[in-house]
Amino acid sequence: MQSVTATGEQVFDWIDTRADERRRAGLTRQLRPRRADDAVLDLAGNDYLGLSRDKRVNGAAAAAALRWGAGSTGSRLVTGTTELHTELEHALASFCGAQAALVFSSGFAANLGAITALSGKGSAIVTDAYIHASLIDGCRLSRADIAVMDHGDANAIKRALATRRTEHALVVTDSVFSVDGDLAPLPELAEACREHNAGLLIDDAHGFGVLGDGGRGAVAEAGLIKEPNVVTTITLSKSLGAQGGAVLGPRRVIRHLVETARTFIFDTGLAPASVAAALSALNVLKEEPERAERVRTNAMTLAMRLREAGFRVSKPDAAVISVQAPTPAAASEWAEECRGAGVWVGCFRPPSVPDKISRLRLTVRADLTESDIDKAVDIITRCAPPGATQK
Amino acid sequence: MQSVTATGEQVFDWIDTRADERRRAGLTRQLRPRRADDAVLDLAGNDYLGLSRDKRVNGAAAAAALRWGAGSTGSRLVTGTTELHTELEHALASFCGAQAALVFSSGFAANLGAITALSGKGSAIVTDAYIHASLIDGCRLSRADIAVMDHGDANAIKRALATRRTEHALVVTDSVFSVDGDLAPLPELAEACREHNAGLLIDDAHGFGVLGDGGRGAVAEAGLIKEPNVVTTITLSKSLGAQGGAVLGPRRVIRHLVETARTFIFDTGLAPASVAAALSALNVLKEEPERAERVRTNAMTLAMRLREAGFRVSKPDAAVISVQAPTPAAASEWAEECRGAGVWVGCFRPPSVPDKISRLRLTVRADLTESDIDKAVDIITRCAPPGATQK
Ligand SMILES: Cc1ncc(COP(=O)(O)O)c(C=O)c1O
Ligand SMILES: Cc1ncc(COP(=O)(O)O)c(C=O)c1O
Repeated sequence: MQSVTATGEQVFDWIDTRADERRRAGLTRQLRPRRADDAVLDLAGNDYLGLSRDKRVNGAAAAAALRWGAGSTGSRLVTGTTELHTELEHALASFCGAQAALVFSSGFAANLGAITALSGKGSAIVTDAYIHASLIDGCRLSRADIAVMDHGDANAIKRALATRRTEHALVVTDSVFSVDGDLAPLPELAEACREHNAGLLIDDAHGFGVLGDGGRGAVAEAGLIKEPNVVTTITLSKSLGAQGGAVLGPRRVIRHLVETARTFIFDTGLAPASVAAALSALNVLKEEPERAERVRTNAMTLAMRLREAGFRVSKPDAAVISVQAPTPAAASEWAEECRGAGVWVGCFRPPSVPDKISRLRLTVRADLTESDIDKAVDIITRCAPPGATQK
Repeated sequence: MQSVTATGEQVFDWIDTRADERRRAGLTRQLRPRRADDAVLDLAGNDYLGLSRDKRVNGAAAAAALRWGAGSTGSRLVTGTTELHTELEHALASFCGAQAALVFSSGFAANLGAITALSGKGSAIVTDAYIHASLIDGCRLSRADIAVMDHGDANAIKRALATRRTEHALVVTDSVFSVDGDLAPLPELAEACREHNAGLLIDDAHGFGVLGDGGRGAVAEAGLIKEPNVVTTITLSKSLGAQGGAVLGPRRVIRHLVETARTFIFDTGLAPASVAAALSALNVLKEEPERAERVRTNAMTLAMRLREAGFRVSKPDAAVISVQAPTPAAASEWAEECRGAGVWVGCFRPPSVPDKISRLRLTVRADLTESDIDKAVDIITRCAPPGATQK
């Protein structure tokens, strides 16, 4: 029997217990608000092309807020679709070479919406073990039978497709994996899907704007963007420096999402300022395609320099570089010291890393200078904890 | 055996079958892009306070895009928290009287994040049958044992709490239900949760800005905002005219979300323009608290006038009015004709309605004039299909 004078005070006591456990494991996370004029060298964000602070992009966002209003005011199916949304969808599809595109309020929402609408009870999903959290949550929401294969193992995915007991199947993968920055074996996956009559959903969040001709992305680069069984998701919040997400694919798939994707139907449309910013950033990328190449060169250079300094560094297939740290606590202190010394790096620790290895996560931008890279290598080396180098 | 020359052409053929089924059932949905200077009377959006087109709000959004950039550039835990985000969080918490607040990239994301972080395998969730899709998806993602009770039945929820077999339990409800605009029995639910040691998560998307003293929302109005076991979610995309969502609650709950909510950790922070717009809208609401009252008066007036005209109209507890239509096809034609005649109304049909009844869904704004209301009643009446009135 509960007391009738219960106050509810104890209901969330378990939260404190969990917080204590995290504290003891060195896994506490804290928000760190940044200032508008922060002078630190940013190797932690995902503004790969340097467009989030571009005057043209910001001007387009500002103008759209004034012209269209601060919000879209409703679901995309009601009042939340402006002509700007449609213009961005056409521009994205035509840039990448896809039949059609659909804009969501985030990349996370695009992944949830696409996966749940393209699978369901009685169908199968086969994934790579290292896919992004938003893809994992999409799979969980789908109610499909889910098979998770070892990271990078296209053969295992193929076998899982071949031995499935369901008619419909969808393979779900990142193109560029968000923690280590490595590229999925897209051609092999596409072949397996074609052969075994499965759909292939590729999250190109970290490939779009960086890989492929003029930044058209990893799916376009692999020649898969027009495939009738391939669906690509991207985010507008990384290379395009804005906010939002999009799904690219066959026209019938996009129409299906309009009619059935829950994160499209039951969510307010993307704010006009973000739509306009993404559209403007896409235009900048078209005019300055060399930005994509500069990101890749910068990533290669920084990774090489850090490897030369003795660190355990991933091979960057795009703009993301991971540097292993000996322990979660060492990783977070390392990142902290770098920040204090003027370089902002990401720090990934369990449970945000699939392999339980803590690391610094560095991202490069198209607009990094040589002296930025010198500074980064210098500071990361000076701040390194014992055990971080292989020497 | 599959042929080795498979092209993947047939993989998504099932999509066309589904589309045909929807077409035959009259349930096809279509995007309808609006122009910036659309002169139609909008009774379909969720811009309850009329702030999405307010010059102050739009100016704040524009200024933030120029000062802070078009995007937040990363996860809130990395580079995606600006001082603006923190300022909005403090302002929201202090306005509503909650200990703390946390901003997400959408109300949908706030609901997914809060529910999954506050429940889980081995815990129980008890919900009302008519909760919003984002709450349903949060429940599905949570892996908790889920019990769905009849709409509005606080006793059933209480019994479910009393007979549960798990230690932890969370009751999940809308404050104002999004389809019919009716208010949940919040005091009864709160009492049941206190008595049976459960958490209570209330989605105040349609109450915030409309109900309570100066628009502080349904949870504040019910005197529950400071309760140690109550968590409130809101969206920045309706009354605040922007985009984004927030969770309000005890400080330890908010800290827990920072550290564990997947849609917070693995999602790009809200764009600065949207943050600034919400902050500015909140300031307007503080200066002009009469806006909240005007919305409620307008809703009551419009509902009364439509009821007098013979329609089956819900009793509007906030800004949402639902008008029943005889069939899905009639509802969509009715809405279509209203639109052609100059009034934009929402049209909800299965599967977006929990009770399978198709209806027009009207929303009112603080800035509607008497002649707007006259025009709305006139056009809705003139365009009504046979069978829409009770006379
Ligand atoms: C691989 C991947 N997919 C999707 C997302 C989610 O995109 P958004 O931040 O636009 O929601 C992210 C990161 O944020 C990501 O790294
Ligand atoms: C009750 C309710 N909760 C949550 C949401 C989602 O909020 P948002 O559109 O900001 O994602 C909506 C509508 O969009 C809603 O009606």
